[in-house]
Formats: sequence, C-alpha cells, structure tokens
Amino acid sequence: MAKDMAAAEQGSFSAKDYHDPPPEPFFDPVELGKWSFYRAFIAEFIATLLFLYVGVLTVIGYKHQNANDPCGGVGLLGIAWAFGGMIFALVYCTAGISGGHINPAVTFGLFLARKLSLMRTLFYIIMQCLGAICGAGVVKGFMPSQYELQGGGANSVAHGYTKGDGLGAEIVGTFVLVYTVFSATDAKRSARDSHVPILAPLPIGFAVFLVHLATIPITGTGINPARSLGAAIIYNRSEAWNEHWIFWVGPFIGAALAALYHQVVIRAIPFKSK
Amino acid sequence: MAKDMAAAEQGSFSAKDYHDPPPEPFFDPVELGKWSFYRAFIAEFIATLLFLYVGVLTVIGYKHQNANDPCGGVGLLGIAWAFGGMIFALVYCTAGISGGHINPAVTFGLFLARKLSLMRTLFYIIMQCLGAICGAGVVKGFMPSQYELQGGGANSVAHGYTKGDGLGAEIVGTFVLVYTVFSATDAKRSARDSHVPILAPLPIGFAVFLVHLATIPITGTGINPARSLGAAIIYNRSEAWNEHWIFWVGPFIGAALAALYHQVVIRAIPFKSK
Amino acid sequence: MAKDMAAAEQGSFSAKDYHDPPPEPFFDPVELGKWSFYRAFIAEFIATLLFLYVGVLTVIGYKHQNANDPCGGVGLLGIAWAFGGMIFALVYCTAGISGGHINPAVTFGLFLARKLSLMRTLFYIIMQCLGAICGAGVVKGFMPSQYELQGGGANSVAHGYTKGDGLGAEIVGTFVLVYTVFSATDAKRSARDSHVPILAPLPIGFAVFLVHLATIPITGTGINPARSLGAAIIYNRSEAWNEHWIFWVGPFIGAALAALYHQVVIRAIPFKSK
Amino acid sequence: MAKDMAAAEQGSFSAKDYHDPPPEPFFDPVELGKWSFYRAFIAEFIATLLFLYVGVLTVIGYKHQNANDPCGGVGLLGIAWAFGGMIFALVYCTAGISGGHINPAVTFGLFLARKLSLMRTLFYIIMQCLGAICGAGVVKGFMPSQYELQGGGANSVAHGYTKGDGLGAEIVGTFVLVYTVFSATDAKRSARDSHVPILAPLPIGFAVFLVHLATIPITGTGINPARSLGAAIIYNRSEAWNEHWIFWVGPFIGAALAALYHQVVIRAIPFKSK
Repeated sequence: MAKDMAAAEQGSFSAKDYHDPPPEPFFDPVELGKWSFYRAFIAEFIATLLFLYVGVLTVIGYKHQNANDPCGGVGLLGIAWAFGGMIFALVYCTAGISGGHINPAVTFGLFLARKLSLMRTLFYIIMQCLGAICGAGVVKGFMPSQYELQGGGANSVAHGYTKGDGLGAEIVGTFVLVYTVFSATDAKRSARDSHVPILAPLPIGFAVFLVHLATIPITGTGINPARSLGAAIIYNRSEAWNEHWIFWVGPFIGAALAALYHQVVIRAIPFKSK
Repeated sequence: MAKDMAAAEQGSFSAKDYHDPPPEPFFDPVELGKWSFYRAFIAEFIATLLFLYVGVLTVIGYKHQNANDPCGGVGLLGIAWAFGGMIFALVYCTAGISGGHINPAVTFGLFLARKLSLMRTLFYIIMQCLGAICGAGVVKGFMPSQYELQGGGANSVAHGYTKGDGLGAEIVGTFVLVYTVFSATDAKRSARDSHVPILAPLPIGFAVFLVHLATIPITGTGINPARSLGAAIIYNRSEAWNEHWIFWVGPFIGAALAALYHQVVIRAIPFKSK
Repeated sequence: MAKDMAAAEQGSFSAKDYHDPPPEPFFDPVELGKWSFYRAFIAEFIATLLFLYVGVLTVIGYKHQNANDPCGGVGLLGIAWAFGGMIFALVYCTAGISGGHINPAVTFGLFLARKLSLMRTLFYIIMQCLGAICGAGVVKGFMPSQYELQGGGANSVAHGYTKGDGLGAEIVGTFVLVYTVFSATDAKRSARDSHVPILAPLPIGFAVFLVHLATIPITGTGINPARSLGAAIIYNRSEAWNEHWIFWVGPFIGAALAALYHQVVIRAIPFKSK
Repeated sequence: MAKDMAAAEQGSFSAKDYHDPPPEPFFDPVELGKWSFYRAFIAEFIATLLFLYVGVLTVIGYKHQNANDPCGGVGLLGIAWAFGGMIFALVYCTAGISGGHINPAVTFGLFLARKLSLMRTLFYIIMQCLGAICGAGVVKGFMPSQYELQGGGANSVAHGYTKGDGLGAEIVGTFVLVYTVFSATDAKRSARDSHVPILAPLPIGFAVFLVHLATIPITGTGINPARSLGAAIIYNRSEAWNEHWIFWVGPFIGAALAALYHQVVIRAIPFKSK
C-alpha cells in the first residue's frame, strides 16, 4: 500500500501530473463583478444559520429531556452527530457554491495557504458570524425560557478544567478538523490513482463529530468561532463571555498549525522549485 | 477550495458545459402510455410503506422498552437513525425508478422547480399517503395494544411548545431536507470536476436524521406529510388530528422556501438568458 | 429528477445500453473445475463466522454490562450497529470473491432470480450455516458461563408478541434487506448515468442495521437463517428451538417476495421480449 | 451477483488485466534518498498521536461523566465511534502519504505480504509507538488527576475473563481489521468492474468500530499495539503492564493470519505461475 503511494509520490518533484493552483491575491477586483462572489456569502450565511439551528436545538432538547428522563434524550453522542452530521450535509450542499467553509477557522486556515483572497476571507467570516447569530436567535425565538434554562448551547470551560486545558482542547480539535479539510481538498488527490477516492464532505463531517466526542466534556466543543460567537451573543451572560477569547484564539492557532503542517511538512511547498 | 469552485462557476453564464433540463409540462400525455410511469407509483407506494413500517415500529419498540428499562431501548438517537437511515436506503433503491421522493414535501418542492409534471406530482402524493397508511397499519396489525399505548408514532406538538413553535420547526426542518435534495440532484454537479463527488442518497438520509435529532422533542418530527398522515389515520385520536394541519402546512412552506432559495438565489435561473 | 430517470428508462424496451446476464443454469459443471468456485465457499464460511462472532459477542457483552450498569453498555443501538456494520464491512470484503451473501435468505432470493446455480446456492447455504455455528461456538469458547446466562444471542419471539407477529416481522425485515440487495446489484444501474452512484455495501449494511432497530424488541432480529441456526445450535435450549422454524420460513418468504417485486414489478422481466 | 464476479475471476489465471506489484525488497537504499520516505514517518507519528488523543480523551471524559450522571456521557458506543471514526478520518488523510497504517499490526501484516520493505516496517512501528506515547501524554497533560482516576485508557483483561480469552479476542479482532485492510487495498479491485467501488477508508474505520463494540467489555480493545503501548507507558501502573504482552502477541498473530488468509486462500498467490 505504502509502496504504490510512494511510487506515485516519486514523480512529484520532477514531472507533475497535477497543478497546484497559484496563490490567491490578497485583493482580486475581478471577483467583485461576479454574482458567484455574492452568492457565496449568502450560501455561507444560510449554511452557518442552519448549522447553529440544528446544533443548538439538539443541545437544548437533550438537556431539557435529560432533566426529566436521564436516558430519554439523544445523549452526548446525539449532540456530536448533530454538529458533525450537519457539517457533512452542509459541506456537501455548499462546496460547489462557496467552498463549504461554514467556519471562520477553516476560512482562516485556507487563507494562510493562499487558497482564498483576503477580501473573500473577511467577508466569509462576517457572514458566518451573522449566520450563527441568526441561527441561535431562531432557536431562542422558539423556546425563550428553555434557551435560558439550558445554557443556550454556549461554550465554556467545564468545572475541573483550567482555561489552558480548554485552549489546548480547542487548538488540537481545530487542528484535526483543518488538517482533514486540507487533506480532502488537496489538488494532488484528484490527479492520483483511484486507491484513495475522494468523498470530501464525509471525512470532514466525521472530524467534527469525533472532536465533539472527545471535547464536549471539556469545553462543549467550539472549534468554530462563529458557532461560539452566535451562541454567546444570543445567550449573552457573563459566564459565556469571560472565556470567549478561548474560542477564537484556540481555533485560529489550531488552523494555522494545520495549514503549516500540510503545506510545509506534507506538501513541502516552500522547498519546491517553481 | 473556494477558488477552484469559483473558477468552475465562471463559465456558467457564458459557455455552459452542462444542460438544465427544460421545465416539465403540467400535463404530459406521453407519460400515460409508459409502464415506467405506473411502476414509479408502485415504487413510491412500497417505499413509503417500508419507511413508515420501520420508523413507527422503532418508535413503538423504544417506548415499550423504555417503560420497563429506561436505558434498554434504542433511544431517541436510534429513532432518528431509523427514519434517516430508511430514507438513505430507500432513496438509494428507488432513485432510478421514481426519483426516490417518498415524501410529498419533496415532490411538491421539485414540482415548484418544474422538475415534475403536475399529474405525476399528484399521483406521487396520493401513492405516498396510501403507502404511509398501509405501513402504519401493518405495525398496528402486529401489536394493536402496544400501538395504542405508545402513541402510534403520531406527530404532535409537545407540551411546553406553542403551535407556532411546531410550525416553525417543521418549516425549517423541511427546508434543510429539501435544500439537500436540490443540492444533491443539481444537474450542474454531474458536469463539474470531481472535487464534490455525488453520492446523493447519503446526505439526503443524513438531513432527515439530523432534523430528527433536533426536533423530535418538539413535534416528534414530521417534515413528511405522508408520514404524519399515515400515523394519524391509523392512530386516529383527536389529539393526533387537532394539530395535523401543521404537518402539511409546515413542510410545504419549507419545501417552497428551499425551492426558491436553490433556484433563484443559488442557481439564479430567473436571471439567466435562455 | 424523476424525469431524467424516466428518460433513461424509456430506452429499456427498445435499444438497451445494458445487458441482463442470462439466467444461471441449475447445474454448471464448468464451475466445478475452478478454484474460484471453492474459494467462494471458504469466503462465505469465514465471513459468516466473523459476522456471528462480532454480533453475538456484542449481544453478550451488552447484556452482561446492562445487568451491572444499565447505561454502561453499547445499548440496542450498538447491537444494531454491530450486525449492520459487519454486513457492510464483510460485503465490501467478499463481494468480489463470492458475491458477499453471508445470508441464506440473500442466496435464496438471488437463486430465485436465476443469478446463481442451484449447486452454488446449496453449497453457499451449507457453508454459511457451518460458519455461523463456528462463529457462535468461538464466542461460547471465550465465555461459557456468560454465554449461557445471557441467552447466547439466540432469536426468539419476545413476550407480548405472537408467533405470527414474529413471522411477519421476519418476512418484512428480510424483504427490506433483499430488496436493497437487488437494487444495489442491478445490472441496469452500472449502465446508467452517474446520478445514482453505486456504493452497494453501504445501503445493504444500513438495511440490516435498520431492521435491527425496528425488530430487536420483537424477535431479536433474524432475517438471516444461518445467524439464527448458529446461535440456536450453540445455545441449544428448547426455547431457542421451539420457534426456530420462524427464522427460516420468514426470511425465505421475505426474500421470495423481494425477488418477485424486483424482477416482475420493477424490472418487468417476464414481460420483456427476449 | 456471484456469477458476474465469478466471470471476472475466470480470467485471473490466464490473461490478467491487473498487475500485482512485485514484492518489496527487505532493504531499499533508494528510499533513503527521498523526502517522501521521511515525510511518511512524520505522517504516521502525527496520525497516531491524534488517534490516541481523541480516543483516550473520549474514554476519560466518558468515565468521568459516567461517575456523576450514569447516562450523561457518550457511552461505550461513543468510545467505539471515537476509535473507529478516527481511523476512518486518519486513513483518509494519510493514505496518500504513508499508506495510512497508524497501527503496527497493520504494518506487520502488510510487511508479511511483502508490500513494505523491512526498513520501512521498522521505522513505521517506531514512529507509531512514539506518536501514541505523545498522544496519551497530551491527554494526561490536560487532566492529570482525571487521567489517573479513570484508568488512562489503558488496555487490560476485564474481570471474569482469562488471559486466553483476552488473547483470543485480540487475535480475532485484529484479523477482522487486517482482513478488511487487505480487501480494501487489493490491486485486483481497481482493475475490476464498478460493482464494488472502492472507498477504502470507510470499511477500515468501520472494522475498528465494530471490533470495539464487541470487545471493549473484554479487553478495552487493543488490536493496535501502539495504542496499547502509548496508554500503558503514560498510565504506567503494574496492572497495565502485567498483561501488556497480550496486546502485542494477539494483534501480530491476528495480522499474520489475515495476511495468510488473503494472500494464500483468497488470492492463491503461492500457486500462481509467475
């Protein structure tokens, strides 16, 4: 197995059968004239809205049921499926429209690898945050009292863990996600043999699911600053805000490390002759 | 990622490498002479029957077990898998025969996008409803007393929620499903690069699974008027009928919004030169 | 969606772009001279052994844990995943060697559709039963006392259900499975457009998973006579034997109905001009 | 189904349409000069680190929650998903870089089939073990007291089972995994018709998930000597060390049997004319 792959790799420094797209410029005026540019923002907005809606609704419904009947709800496993599964379905739906980020950390990581213009990066992050706020807002609109009672799906570091633990969990968790995103969207993969077929949205959704399994007990799992911001703004209590920086700093560090690992170590892009 | 996709999109207003099929007529007499037309009705009938059979049986079995051993059943998570998983398997089995709708809201949404004749739309919805009634009926035939005792899988708005909450949950839930259906069956996707491969039934099944995770605590999750009607007719108690309109109006509004979003915003079909 | 498919169907009575393989003879002496013939038996034996091993071990481990800690085991949901997931993995592994039946009901259904010689059918069923006996035997070898205590994974009709209910559940459950098998392995699919891509083992595994969700509370879910026989022989108590016929008659009727439905209604094979 | 496959098999002794790669040499000096050789080690190191991190964190978090709220955690089912899902995601990410082993037993099995040089085999196993130690170490760094309290995810034979039971469970479990790996990466598959499409990481991940469902109650499930070693070294108590040999001997025997079964029985490689 390794050999076939290694053989396929040998050619990569001499005659390539694939092309890395050139780095994106920071500002690309041509983009501004295209409907597909604005459509991508709408798609990110709606996708992040739906992501928060399903995710937060599942958290609230679980906590509400758990109070009455400890085994009656969907469980932490169900919550992990809700967040991970939505990413699978939404990346599948929006990949062709906006690239299917639905997460400022993913957008930031891809920007560091120059796969996105700075302008697009900023607009994406704004739209993702607006969508997340609206998504959490819709849930609160459905059930204002339950929303307050059950914590509104806001992220915070659980008792028994330090802020450093929470920050570390967010860093490693986002690394897992963004590393999977880079692996799944690598230009090299499409050009290679069929041993490793591409069904990108599935492993990306699984990465989100798996990180939730591991870190819900620690931070409730952010690894997505828009998701944390939306829930924090709508919940709007001081306990949600005190540690809010963790859910921006952690994911951005994790995304940067994943971009570094994939571009420098795995793809060795800085060391290649142009 | 976004760039590759954006590049692929650029061509879409000038030289297309794909063809949107022309809108379906409202009435197509040629269809009436084909066996495949009638076969599609049978396939929708059988698929909806099996969908209700497995789904309602899982609900009943869960509630029965839960009464004796609170942690012994498959849980709400198992119920969500039963409904979502069946949609995955049945869409996989019937997509080539009838398009694999198994849901009047999906049929209605695709009709609005002119992907289905009016005649076919009406027949599909009738067959789906008949199949659902038979599916719930088979479950009741197996276990008449348990069926009555455990609520027969009928949808209703849970205590603590208003009818408006239930309606909203059905609208957004059906939007998620029908939006996924439109994304998965888009003519443009097949013509595009392999970054976003098509395995349509899987994300569609996941959409149903995810909406169940989020809204079982609110309405028991309809997002499929045939499923709600079948369970209501066989259960046939006033509490199942009082709010039954929600499970038709909500899904149809959600499907219409999804059709609108996909056709107008994402595909910009009204603004394209023919 | 339906239209594209319907269009693809139109050609099916005039000029076909695919070929149904001719019916298999009942006895094919050429097969006897090939290593691949004997290898297929070994593959079915090992696959059914592993299927019973993982499935029954999960049932025993769950019941053992459940007695000590009601929420500590994998739950009925975990049992359903164990049986369905193993079918997914094993069909994936053996499809190219033996067709990946691992179930006498599947073999019987495919024989009725003349996709298998009678000789191969009989040998397959024998090897599947031997494999199942050995698989359950290995589990008993690991934990003789727990095996006896926890019922050995044997199928029986649960209290509160009649034998007719159990028979019905096995018939409909096997119908779901064999219908999915026929849909997934249809010769027509490979020749058709890419709207409905083929990843056959996944929906087949899901069908087994879903039927378990629905009918574990009724019969423990057989839908596989080899699985029921293996557990019954190793458990070997009268309560496992009294109703054992249900787990042969039910699956065989269900498989026959699925073969009939797919070949006659969906494919209309008897009505086609040769 | 079987017939199509059998037909495809017929040609395999006369004119092949595929090529088995030649056996790897034990020592290949050319490899040493390639960056891809060293990169593969880094990829195995990072992947095994992330595998242990997510897996062990999930085990600890589950046990911690279970003590306070018996039904509140992700359950054994969630733990099985964490290990199996990570293998799915990580094999997907690293298959093109290192072959995606992440497990000394897999590396050993592929070495026996001469798909890997001895040098690469040894380096892989060393890197996997180092990665596993670091992964478990990171978890302990986050939560030193909980790590000690909850057993650190270390493997041991549960009360009520003998060491022989544990060894047997590891042998059969690793057989299931390595057999799936061989089936998924078989050179013959890519050359064959599209009936059995290849999505290799998914069944491999499922195999790990399924073996966990079956054997968590027996040994905590190793089937990966690096995973067992990493947890044992960081936990470092005598109860984790006494039975540690089981988690090396068992997986290596299971992997050897799977290699034997696939190469000799299924592929009949020793009996083929060159």
